[in-house]
Amino acid sequence: MSIQIHPIREIPEVSQGDDVAALIVNGLASTNLDLVDRDVIVVTHKVVSKAEGRIEPAADDRAYRKLAEREARSILRRRGDLLIAQTAQGFICANAGVDRSNVEKGSAVLLPVDADRSAHGIRMRLEQATGTSLAVVVTDTFGRPWRRGLVDVAIGVSGLPAVLDLRGQTDAQGREMHVTEIAIVDEIAAAADLVMGKADSVPAAVVRGLGLSGEGRATDLVRPAEEDLFR
Amino acid sequence: MSIQIHPIREIPEVSQGDDVAALIVNGLASTNLDLVDRDVIVVTHKVVSKAEGRIEPAADDRAYRKLAEREARSILRRRGDLLIAQTAQGFICANAGVDRSNVEKGSAVLLPVDADRSAHGIRMRLEQATGTSLAVVVTDTFGRPWRRGLVDVAIGVSGLPAVLDLRGQTDAQGREMHVTEIAIVDEIAAAADLVMGKADSVPAAVVRGLGLSGEGRATDLVRPAEEDLFR
Repeated sequence: MSIQIHPIREIPEVSQGDDVAALIVNGLASTNLDLVDRDVIVVTHKVVSKAEGRIEPAADDRAYRKLAEREARSILRRRGDLLIAQTAQGFICANAGVDRSNVEKGSAVLLPVDADRSAHGIRMRLEQATGTSLAVVVTDTFGRPWRRGLVDVAIGVSGLPAVLDLRGQTDAQGREMHVTEIAIVDEIAAAADLVMGKADSVPAAVVRGLGLSGEGRATDLVRPAEEDLFR
Repeated sequence: MSIQIHPIREIPEVSQGDDVAALIVNGLASTNLDLVDRDVIVVTHKVVSKAEGRIEPAADDRAYRKLAEREARSILRRRGDLLIAQTAQGFICANAGVDRSNVEKGSAVLLPVDADRSAHGIRMRLEQATGTSLAVVVTDTFGRPWRRGLVDVAIGVSGLPAVLDLRGQTDAQGREMHVTEIAIVDEIAAAADLVMGKADSVPAAVVRGLGLSGEGRATDLVRPAEEDLFR
């Protein structure tokens, strides 16, 4: 099984009230790409948040920090202007996901209120428009403890399991796999970012060939606090 | 730019002294895949470690834990049989990378001593065998704080930057990107895992279409302790 990852180009700047699914359908037409069953559409949350009106003024660093504090359910660490905080959905990331890049000066983009619900809505509209059976992943770009550099991860999903549970399956030696839960949607998000790039304004991509389906939620990825050694 | 990810099948069980590059070349022939310039070969460290003889007896849980402690440069957390520890190369992961899955019962696989050097050796031999200009990424499967499920990450690289530094570039609004260092080899590792799977015995893959080259090391990904909020 090989997979292909195609960028979806020609998606214009998004404004509040825009239909992200319709913009993706137009982008696919410009890219000369027809969707097929089980394609996974990956879309950066930036366009979803903008369409949902999740933009607020942030004139200066102080206003920006106040926004991040307001969006945080809890704060794990502070250093200078950086907060490491848990979002309403439960994800732990820099500044509770509030971001000033790729948005007009003096503004900040918040995360979608419920990115799983956003993913589901986009999926329903895309399936209706294209007559195919799809999955949608909404991504954000997160730092990690211990490892430099950012990677894209899933913050919303519809039509896929978030975690692939291989426990009970056997490895190549016939030994039962004991701790193998794969964060498959995070791997899909990271893979899609390889064609999206940060400065290139490619906000969406198609991952083809996975052959997966299911009904997970990105919040399935949130490790319960009592299992977490690093809160 | 689209990318393709192809599994390399028919790589047999690896023993100490085996030439991993030769096994990959044979696997590519079985898979009917010819390498082209700038292909990235992703290979799980398991086959590299086995070829390098990095297997030790671990008869029971106690022996296994002792091995993990021996391989750890420092230990961040303990819970039951689980250590979160820093490896000699500097990576922070479960049990200092010592693993009992996909290896004979009563044994454990250690990480390669220097997976960057392993990647470089494989790359040199692959380039010589195929007459192409390549990159090689050696991967392991890591858990993460805060997020459930495992993802593949890079622990060795040759022929690619580990981190893509987009600082100084401008975003779609012409605003300078301030904190955008992408952990590109980790995204490549995660992407390749989508065709490798844990139980399927596909230990290698080709990622085609990235068009990247450079000379990074996976150890570039190690966040210095003084910058790290979660040590």
